[in-house]
Amino acid sequence: MAHSPSIITLLTDFGTKDEYVGVLKGVILRSNRNIVTVDISHHIPPQDTIAAAHILSRSFSYFPAETVHLIVVDPGVGSSRKILAMKAYNHYFVGPDNGVLSHLFRDDNAAVYQIDMGKWGGEKTSNTFHGRDIMAPAAAHLASTHCLLDIGEKISGSDCIKTLQQEPILLKNILLGGVVHVDHFGNLCTNITRADLEAFGPEPYQITIGNIVIPVISKSYSSKAGGSYLALFDSHDLLEISLNQGSAHKQLGLGTGTEVKVEKFPLD
Amino acid sequence: MAHSPSIITLLTDFGTKDEYVGVLKGVILRSNRNIVTVDISHHIPPQDTIAAAHILSRSFSYFPAETVHLIVVDPGVGSSRKILAMKAYNHYFVGPDNGVLSHLFRDDNAAVYQIDMGKWGGEKTSNTFHGRDIMAPAAAHLASTHCLLDIGEKISGSDCIKTLQQEPILLKNILLGGVVHVDHFGNLCTNITRADLEAFGPEPYQITIGNIVIPVISKSYSSKAGGSYLALFDSHDLLEISLNQGSAHKQLGLGTGTEVKVEKFPLD
Amino acid sequence: MAHSPSIITLLTDFGTKDEYVGVLKGVILRSNRNIVTVDISHHIPPQDTIAAAHILSRSFSYFPAETVHLIVVDPGVGSSRKILAMKAYNHYFVGPDNGVLSHLFRDDNAAVYQIDMGKWGGEKTSNTFHGRDIMAPAAAHLASTHCLLDIGEKISGSDCIKTLQQEPILLKNILLGGVVHVDHFGNLCTNITRADLEAFGPEPYQITIGNIVIPVISKSYSSKAGGSYLALFDSHDLLEISLNQGSAHKQLGLGTGTEVKVEKFPLD
Repeated sequence: MAHSPSIITLLTDFGTKDEYVGVLKGVILRSNRNIVTVDISHHIPPQDTIAAAHILSRSFSYFPAETVHLIVVDPGVGSSRKILAMKAYNHYFVGPDNGVLSHLFRDDNAAVYQIDMGKWGGEKTSNTFHGRDIMAPAAAHLASTHCLLDIGEKISGSDCIKTLQQEPILLKNILLGGVVHVDHFGNLCTNITRADLEAFGPEPYQITIGNIVIPVISKSYSSKAGGSYLALFDSHDLLEISLNQGSAHKQLGLGTGTEVKVEKFPLD
Repeated sequence: MAHSPSIITLLTDFGTKDEYVGVLKGVILRSNRNIVTVDISHHIPPQDTIAAAHILSRSFSYFPAETVHLIVVDPGVGSSRKILAMKAYNHYFVGPDNGVLSHLFRDDNAAVYQIDMGKWGGEKTSNTFHGRDIMAPAAAHLASTHCLLDIGEKISGSDCIKTLQQEPILLKNILLGGVVHVDHFGNLCTNITRADLEAFGPEPYQITIGNIVIPVISKSYSSKAGGSYLALFDSHDLLEISLNQGSAHKQLGLGTGTEVKVEKFPLD
Repeated sequence: MAHSPSIITLLTDFGTKDEYVGVLKGVILRSNRNIVTVDISHHIPPQDTIAAAHILSRSFSYFPAETVHLIVVDPGVGSSRKILAMKAYNHYFVGPDNGVLSHLFRDDNAAVYQIDMGKWGGEKTSNTFHGRDIMAPAAAHLASTHCLLDIGEKISGSDCIKTLQQEPILLKNILLGGVVHVDHFGNLCTNITRADLEAFGPEPYQITIGNIVIPVISKSYSSKAGGSYLALFDSHDLLEISLNQGSAHKQLGLGTGTEVKVEKFPLD
């Protein structure tokens, strides 16, 4: 019987100029050449574990159950930081214990293991590229076997590092959130969910970012004329500030960390 | 019997910084993990449907027959624009009805279907990412089954939107074309075909772009010394202006839309 | 019996904006759709054969034995330069005879063949894209058959072009090397190996680059506080100058070609 291929997704801050991503894939294929590798992104800002956690949380669930997700954003490589392998939401994850896996610990049934670095790295482990030397071999083994027991010791997720983006703050008549991601199109992605707004109360709102006030939540990018600013829910039901047929990021000069204020309208 | 894997190529304006491309592949693999996905480009300028149509026309025919090509350059997402699935030149194509498929309607035997968005998107369809919610599932189905009948209603290609680059203009003794694409090497790709020049008449020509006059069509980049400007036919038999071992684009400061004039020489 | 898929890695200066990489993969899949293609990098600086040779030497051995590595950095395309296919270190390589394969000739058992361009290119061969028209079909054939005899005539590797980076120079009490690569993180990768330093003598050293003096070789990036310069061995046992949590390249304004001086300490 032919087996369906196993999948490993890759999320790193390696860029694509150097050979680093190719080498990760080589190590995986050397372990099992029937594994399919899929790039999520290699353009996480260097060492930005929060951005990696955010992108991971927005992507993993679109893959088949039991996909292995390998995250190598690892500023502490060569130090005493742990490397984790875990199962959560019926997917597998391998990455350093530095916050990149933060969102997965929300699964109450998450099973967390500390990778045995001696077993998986061996004698020739470098101090600068544990993605290649330890994590990729362990991820390939997980993809081939789905067996976490071989990985190392089971540990408690409560001892692992979590670094999450701040959630919006609900003041009396104001919901105060912020931009957490600027995407390729210059859309300003906020931490305000559709559920946050439903809890805040019904429209109409007045949404303020920088000097711009947006009086309505639009349905789609083309709901307003080109060159207009829009607030709308993105494909993850998060509030997004967008410039139709342009880059809100470039035009407003605003980015990650910018405050986004939602007020009930008319203002009291 | 083991089946040969089906192929889906991806052409988008998503960039590779965000998770969007990875998510498309996840959705495809969740439908059928034996599908092989291949990136054509994710660096189409945002919302540039003409550029997408151009790159698609230069690439699809190099793939095996019956490959599915998924094009997500979709500024009208969430509006009433149609989404199309079609078979042309013995390949399959899925993309919005906004001109990205323009070149394919030239196949007189093209079969065009309007994707049933309710059937393929379902309840949870977003208004901002139909690539993920509608087009990728439909493309995966096509790759698995080659069955357009399941996709939606058959429509006439003559009702679909075509946006093509302008063709060169033949004046009395002048063939007037333009730069339609600047490639990674800074080569200035024109809309003048080898056939256009054969119809125009035999060499010698005088080719003018900006302040530069090129007196001959070279055979290869290395036909002239490094630092020389060349006119030559690219690998699609289109006239290209190039700077040997340099970027004609950067050195001349010229790009898409620049006029390229071919005159017979000696001039009358 | 199901065969394990064959692998072709791709290393080019094509960038990822245009369709060129996708077209290479299309040609390969048209030859055999069970071949798995893996990108090493498409961001080799245009026409930089030395950089391509360097990245290739750092990556190929991480792939399974008998992987085919296709290198298309080919400024001489369309000229009389040869195209080579060779087996070395139990891997296969296809690329132009311009130095990109330099490191592989060090294998005394290397078998080198000149690709028969007429046989592999055919009538419709362009003068600008032999990667597509000749090298990809030959590489796909090698991946499918492992048979070099079909490729062309066996030639002597000693007649092939080698362009290697300069090795470090050992003066009386000084080991003089240089930066040969700047990676995505801004790490300054030198040509000084761990073996070079062991031959030079035991620590302590004083390492000088630009105006910076580094008194010790660190074990890992996090051995010093953020914002500190470090010298350490990279994952290939080459000396690297790094700025913890920053870019040494940007902060120092130094790049490829910069001299790196190692002196014994205390200085005589």
